[in-house]
Amino acid sequence: MTIRIGVITASDRASAGIYEDISGMAIQETMKDYLKSKHEIVYRCIPDDQHTIEETMRELCDEQGCCLVVTTGGTGPARRDVTPEATENVCEKMMPGFGELMRQVSLKYVPTAILSRQSAGIRGKSLIINLPGKPKSIRECLDAVFPAVPYCIDLIEGPYLECNEEVIKAFRPKQ
Amino acid sequence: MTIRIGVITASDRASAGIYEDISGMAIQETMKDYLKSKHEIVYRCIPDDQHTIEETMRELCDEQGCCLVVTTGGTGPARRDVTPEATENVCEKMMPGFGELMRQVSLKYVPTAILSRQSAGIRGKSLIINLPGKPKSIRECLDAVFPAVPYCIDLIEGPYLECNEEVIKAFRPKQ
Amino acid sequence: MTIRIGVITASDRASAGIYEDISGMAIQETMKDYLKSKHEIVYRCIPDDQHTIEETMRELCDEQGCCLVVTTGGTGPARRDVTPEATENVCEKMMPGFGELMRQVSLKYVPTAILSRQSAGIRGKSLIINLPGKPKSIRECLDAVFPAVPYCIDLIEGPYLECNEEVIKAFRPKQ
Repeated sequence: MTIRIGVITASDRASAGIYEDISGMAIQETMKDYLKSKHEIVYRCIPDDQHTIEETMRELCDEQGCCLVVTTGGTGPARRDVTPEATENVCEKMMPGFGELMRQVSLKYVPTAILSRQSAGIRGKSLIINLPGKPKSIRECLDAVFPAVPYCIDLIEGPYLECNEEVIKAFRPKQ
Repeated sequence: MTIRIGVITASDRASAGIYEDISGMAIQETMKDYLKSKHEIVYRCIPDDQHTIEETMRELCDEQGCCLVVTTGGTGPARRDVTPEATENVCEKMMPGFGELMRQVSLKYVPTAILSRQSAGIRGKSLIINLPGKPKSIRECLDAVFPAVPYCIDLIEGPYLECNEEVIKAFRPKQ
Repeated sequence: MTIRIGVITASDRASAGIYEDISGMAIQETMKDYLKSKHEIVYRCIPDDQHTIEETMRELCDEQGCCLVVTTGGTGPARRDVTPEATENVCEKMMPGFGELMRQVSLKYVPTAILSRQSAGIRGKSLIINLPGKPKSIRECLDAVFPAVPYCIDLIEGPYLECNEEVIKAFRPKQ
């Protein structure tokens, strides 16, 4: 069974073609760097509309069978920033540790890191992680949280992810 | 248009005149220190009653047009401590990064910092921030989070706040 | 009046007798080490069933009069991990600072600490704290948060806890 990773860019402007979706591309590049396991990316670039974001998360988790769905955009305080609310609505469990660690890491670079409301949660056998919108922060945040991702996916009965150990070290505690 | 900053002290004893509201005064002094922009303070000292706190927050945001509302008091675990619940009820979006950073800063001074439940959130074009009740902690917490406040208010379409850079440095990322 | 401390192990396997409840024992040992005040432990080992966990928390708080209820197990992302949800359902107030600090401490040891969803909350005059399931992490987490516990219990009008100061130092701010 092929491993599928979902990438959702929530951005009014990128989805309207006003600018290129550099953030979504950055996530796809990072996944290629990290993962030794053969995998397919399922990519969606959509407007900052809460209903659309929720529908897309459901599609990628339930129909496309993505074990991991990574989003970018829509985590700030502005009126159209609703990705964390969408995530909370579709998830059965929230994982506060992801957002806490990502904000802590971003705080080393900018004091406005506290404005990022990104979170993570579990829907069925899928882990959904919100990343910030800026390409530079994406890699910083993924480098911080990804070591815990393969074990998290083991625990929710998803596929076994193998990482390129020279790029990122997955950690699986000895039982 | 004048910039308005709301200050709410939630305290049964201060609102009954049993003691002076040193905390509310400390916030007002700090705003004067921080802000170069001309501004007015709208100040309320009220009991620790959830309904009253919510009504006061709505008044300061919606009727008084405060772009920033800072509260003190009512963030502990005691029965009458209900400011975070009031904040969550009146806000459309919660900003977990503010509470996380304030607790982290206060933890350098006292291990009981984890008992502080303060948070922050967005109501319309207003940012509401809960501070702890103790005057000493107020300045520590504001020094930590305020650099992100002017940019946050830009993002929610509020007025442009200018800071006294020798006192506190506002950070606005280059777009 | 005797001080009562509740200990709940949520574990399908330990409650079925498949393995020994080392984690529950570790908490009881730690309480004996920490507390100078005479106290009784009320111990329950139950399956990872949300309804059962909620009922047990209510019993220990309301009927047994425990001022502190410490749980272990059920804080991960797996389908049967529901202790944080049970805690949130029975508590009037959540205390996010406990989970934040415990995850921060555990992150020094393992990157998978972000998968721990443990929290804490207040039900009436009882403080409920979720600890992780692994015995080693239990002591690390308790050492980090316990200095704030006696003062928290003062604030919710529980009994006065005295600690063995050479083992753990309770902190009570001067009023």
